[in-house]
Amino acid sequence: MPDKVLIYSRFPKALMLRIGQRYDLMDAAGKPPRDVFTAEQLSGIRAMITAGGTPLGGDMMDMMPSLRAIVCYGTGFDGVDMAAAARRGIAVGHSPGANASAVADLAVTLMLAATRRLLPADDYVRSGNWAAAKPSPLMRPQPGNPGRRVGVYGMGEIGRKIASRVAAFECEVGYFSRSRREVPYQYLPSLEALAEWCTVLMIAVRAGEDTNHVVDAGILQKLGKDGYVVNISRGSVIDQEALVAALADQTIAGAGLDVYPKEPHAPDALTGLPNVVLTPHIGGHTQESHTAMQNCVIANLDTFFAGQPLAYPVLTA
Amino acid sequence: MPDKVLIYSRFPKALMLRIGQRYDLMDAAGKPPRDVFTAEQLSGIRAMITAGGTPLGGDMMDMMPSLRAIVCYGTGFDGVDMAAAARRGIAVGHSPGANASAVADLAVTLMLAATRRLLPADDYVRSGNWAAAKPSPLMRPQPGNPGRRVGVYGMGEIGRKIASRVAAFECEVGYFSRSRREVPYQYLPSLEALAEWCTVLMIAVRAGEDTNHVVDAGILQKLGKDGYVVNISRGSVIDQEALVAALADQTIAGAGLDVYPKEPHAPDALTGLPNVVLTPHIGGHTQESHTAMQNCVIANLDTFFAGQPLAYPVLTA
Repeated sequence: MPDKVLIYSRFPKALMLRIGQRYDLMDAAGKPPRDVFTAEQLSGIRAMITAGGTPLGGDMMDMMPSLRAIVCYGTGFDGVDMAAAARRGIAVGHSPGANASAVADLAVTLMLAATRRLLPADDYVRSGNWAAAKPSPLMRPQPGNPGRRVGVYGMGEIGRKIASRVAAFECEVGYFSRSRREVPYQYLPSLEALAEWCTVLMIAVRAGEDTNHVVDAGILQKLGKDGYVVNISRGSVIDQEALVAALADQTIAGAGLDVYPKEPHAPDALTGLPNVVLTPHIGGHTQESHTAMQNCVIANLDTFFAGQPLAYPVLTA
Repeated sequence: MPDKVLIYSRFPKALMLRIGQRYDLMDAAGKPPRDVFTAEQLSGIRAMITAGGTPLGGDMMDMMPSLRAIVCYGTGFDGVDMAAAARRGIAVGHSPGANASAVADLAVTLMLAATRRLLPADDYVRSGNWAAAKPSPLMRPQPGNPGRRVGVYGMGEIGRKIASRVAAFECEVGYFSRSRREVPYQYLPSLEALAEWCTVLMIAVRAGEDTNHVVDAGILQKLGKDGYVVNISRGSVIDQEALVAALADQTIAGAGLDVYPKEPHAPDALTGLPNVVLTPHIGGHTQESHTAMQNCVIANLDTFFAGQPLAYPVLTA
């Protein structure tokens, strides 16, 4: 009989197909597990799969007294109370790097689309305004990539892949990260200094309490009127009210966002703006990336149920 | 008194501002010049500025018997009847490479947006369908970039810049060009072979009679169901009816187009499709690129009126 594994977040069934061939998946589908399963069913659960951004605290862990493994689908684990897990002897695993290329690709896609005003351009063609030669302030020539200063905040695997892609567009690349890395890009000593230096800020930092709302009104103002912010990390990193204000006031020129504070909701104040490109948290959403993330989930579950250390444990500094 | 220069195509006034500071611009604004100027006015014209794609034949040249210089704003000169110009002793100049980075950047933007379904993704967020968890077939995971085979058709300055950018996304790059070049990409011996090999076809070939409709139904079919075509060259290179059919039948997966056979018109058959990204011929449309193209136009006019060979003459093989 296959081992039982709780599915804690809402995942499309297609993503769980391969994992379901090896494990008996108890799908809570994003609902509180005790609404879906009995206390007895929950008491037998030893491993669960979650989305790293979904809040998962000690109180929830206590409903599953046999729980010993939390497996995050993806790289992030910011929703998991790591201290609470450690106190209960629960191992936490994730999928490090499995989606790095896909996320970096989306970051650069958002930067290119926002800075080149791709959505207004497509609309200008489809609406017939181009054929009618209707003047459009949104279609004025914008600064191009060569010589553009792009600042990457966070130089993990995703940050590095963003940097190497952006460099191919003849941009200058700078970065800020907790520690200086062996990379061929200019290091700025703080987020403030990075924002002062660059016009496009690419947020690729790992989310956590220390990065909550660090991209605030002050940082946005340093980017300037030609400035853009791109976020593929977590919505919590940006002070969203300050971002909406900066976009509406044109303190900055635009933004590309894949993540939001309260997913799957993007606030009306954002969705009504013409100078943003918005995607529904699809950074890791390519076929190869899902396969790689599933491989990590399966490897973590296989090692756990074999009584070994997780194949891909979360390593906290 | 500044020399008179005819403006033959329709250009935004802002683009002609710098040139107008040095020359007396007679703006036909895209209308037939004899509708706007008298025969006597036209007879005095020695130089003109045109968009390279605008048709300009011997009959038009004959209306300006003193014409000795045709200066194209941009790289292309496919609209100019080069043989007719040569017979009349008219030099033809252009802006080689001035817009290469901007055009290559847009090509890659179109590729990334089309393959990642950026427009449907933005619409999914803005419409509220994401918040409502409404299933969307357009939001299914697609193939990602690493390992993707991208075929570049034409390996001039724009083709090379497309190739170096695409390579940074961990794609394999192949190309076909009239002659093999000293570039680190796989050479395919024909357009057919390139289309067979790749899934994304980037059209960067110089347009002309020999390339008219060369991307036809047969080439599109070779790209396959996962295939994409991106065109930043000229609309004439693609058989547009075949493209519309392939997109509607999903013989290919999608397209990114900046150019069309009859600009500024994009046919309704295209603008109604969800699997295309359409831009209004803005490949060279960045601030730096316009400045660089203006520099070339001014250098061509300055050398011409100084009685010297054009600074940037069209070099035909």
